Amino acid sequence: MAEVLPLSGRLIGVGTGPGDPELLTVKALRALESADVLAFFAKAGRRGNGRAIVDGLLKPGIVELPLYYPVTTEIEKDHDDYKSQITDFYDRSAEAVAAHLSAGRTVAVLSEGDPLFYGSYMHLHVRLAGTFSAEVIPGITAMSGCWSVAGLPIVQGDDILSVLPGTLSEAELARRLADTQAAVIMKVGRNLPKIRRALAAVGKLAEAVYVERGTMANAAMVPLPEKVDDAAPYFSLVLVPGWKGRR
Amino acid sequence: MAEVLPLSGRLIGVGTGPGDPELLTVKALRALESADVLAFFAKAGRRGNGRAIVDGLLKPGIVELPLYYPVTTEIEKDHDDYKSQITDFYDRSAEAVAAHLSAGRTVAVLSEGDPLFYGSYMHLHVRLAGTFSAEVIPGITAMSGCWSVAGLPIVQGDDILSVLPGTLSEAELARRLADTQAAVIMKVGRNLPKIRRALAAVGKLAEAVYVERGTMANAAMVPLPEKVDDAAPYFSLVLVPGWKGRR
Repeated sequence: MAEVLPLSGRLIGVGTGPGDPELLTVKALRALESADVLAFFAKAGRRGNGRAIVDGLLKPGIVELPLYYPVTTEIEKDHDDYKSQITDFYDRSAEAVAAHLSAGRTVAVLSEGDPLFYGSYMHLHVRLAGTFSAEVIPGITAMSGCWSVAGLPIVQGDDILSVLPGTLSEAELARRLADTQAAVIMKVGRNLPKIRRALAAVGKLAEAVYVERGTMANAAMVPLPEKVDDAAPYFSLVLVPGWKGRR
Repeated sequence: MAEVLPLSGRLIGVGTGPGDPELLTVKALRALESADVLAFFAKAGRRGNGRAIVDGLLKPGIVELPLYYPVTTEIEKDHDDYKSQITDFYDRSAEAVAAHLSAGRTVAVLSEGDPLFYGSYMHLHVRLAGTFSAEVIPGITAMSGCWSVAGLPIVQGDDILSVLPGTLSEAELARRLADTQAAVIMKVGRNLPKIRRALAAVGKLAEAVYVERGTMANAAMVPLPEKVDDAAPYFSLVLVPGWKGRR
């Protein structure tokens, strides 16, 4: 006997872009209009950045499904307990979303920036896209938002771009910065002094630009050598432009 | 005596995204509405991809300023004649835009994908942004469009992403592919056989995905090992996903 498949809903990963609600795409707006359920990741007790971006864009009556990260900051990231807690959290989140999908509802999952570029949405996508109809709507990445606000041409022609986490060791950062035309350094935060030293070691400190809160109303950018302190939020970026030919 | 500054217009670099008009941002749409003049680069006798994307989005009466590349395909790219012709072309293009700006008009310059990420708009920006008020509106890059259509998580956590031109030598491609978690290979075209060999040499051919015409209606994607021929348009991409941990 053939199995009777339930009418099932649609999963949509929606890129919200870097912060300015005007940087949502038309397609993302339509997804928000079509969704029955709005899911988003947030720290416990917080609203989440993605949710804040779409605040003025939601239709009345949409069901909100916040997915709160477990409190794990007291555990080291490579510790087994952290891994097991966070895997368990993504499993339960996927189940919560699946319950709506199985009931035939369209679920939009917000993702700051671009969903498949370092986004938490990916954890739901790999768990659900095989079972349910899934669509991903790309978003403006934080790095695009930052180099646009800074008016900084980042790559041209045959330039190589390296996207590097600031968590790399100083030697590894220096090696990779020396071996690329352009670089975007993510996860700056308390790694800033190390990033400065790595840039200086390969003679690229002078051209580096520090950008904070990319496309927020209170964005701040400054040539890195002119930044006098080492205070930096986790989501600030350091940009090293390529395009040495220029004209 | 103080110089009297003319009321001058505004330059806006507008990212059109990778092809689907719904992937324009709300901010890009507003820029098209506010513009007096619409400038765009195109091959002689062609309309240009950026211009085609916004075809249904233009207000009546907008002044169009096509900027046609000189016919230079018969000259090698690193030849002095090519460089001088293309520099001259960008100088003249900037002058044509400046004439409108000096007359107080707002000029939107279309840029496929993201203006400061390998876009021709950059050549106008470096020539004009010091003199006129300039704003850059980021766009969805071709690579974001491609990994979204493919539903392929590209980077997570502390992954490194390398954006590489397919024009690199086979040895250099292999070296860099071995030394990164994720990669996007641009400018595929006739470089595809070389790209295959470089991926195979470092054991990454099996995970590579070939994407053609990213977010166009006729997009095609296929695991690279399953692509039987070596025909590839210049603007196709090869994606090598990171995120080895996955769950």
